[in-house]
Amino acid sequence: MSREEILFANEAFYQAFADGDAAAMTALWAEEAPIACLHPGWEPLFEREHVIASWRAILEKPPAVRCLAPRVHDHGEVAFVLCWEAVGDQYLLATNIFAREAGRWRMVHHQSGPTNGKPPAAARDDRPRTIN
Amino acid sequence: MSREEILFANEAFYQAFADGDAAAMTALWAEEAPIACLHPGWEPLFEREHVIASWRAILEKPPAVRCLAPRVHDHGEVAFVLCWEAVGDQYLLATNIFAREAGRWRMVHHQSGPTNGKPPAAARDDRPRTIN
Repeated sequence: MSREEILFANEAFYQAFADGDAAAMTALWAEEAPIACLHPGWEPLFEREHVIASWRAILEKPPAVRCLAPRVHDHGEVAFVLCWEAVGDQYLLATNIFAREAGRWRMVHHQSGPTNGKPPAAARDDRPRTIN
Repeated sequence: MSREEILFANEAFYQAFADGDAAAMTALWAEEAPIACLHPGWEPLFEREHVIASWRAILEKPPAVRCLAPRVHDHGEVAFVLCWEAVGDQYLLATNIFAREAGRWRMVHHQSGPTNGKPPAAARDDRPRTIN
């Protein structure tokens, strides 16, 4: 059950990202635990207001982003999801960390960075394991 | 106390990295929990043998790497450390996740990726918070 909840939280992140939904993006980040966000090419963001501001800026013109082949590593109250991000014709790799806050999985960390530029094997087989 | 232990585990990672110490690097990765490693520009590595093999290859000619301004987000049995990596004259940002295994903090995930190319503010002030 936990795994599905974590994947759902990860899916909600990419849905808010692709939809340019700043309210949903704001709501899914943790409010109690310290958070951090490492956008590729940006300075790292550690304060909630800076993280949220970065997403508001990005979501003004959201890219066509899809999550591919998410993989959950569940550690009980904390879990991380590793996945590809298809952004236009580029592929990135992301580490998304979630922590339970008041019974709900909320994002506490996001890092996205370069891969070898290739999609996951499943996608190469024309069987993309997208979240949509 | 936990914070110091986590910083020590993170320091041991960069020490093994800089020293090209494959045995130390192998020993610090978790053996029970699933692990993952996202080197910038590589395909993602999920199997322990692939992660260890990647480090053996990298450590044959280790770069001059230093960890700067590590920041610990402690979640009890899991913690993550965010830090700059100074590699030669380049700066990267890393997410290092540790989990307690038999009472010891062991690495379960590493992602390194591009920042805005600048060192942490502390380093710009000529007060690098290095681990050495």
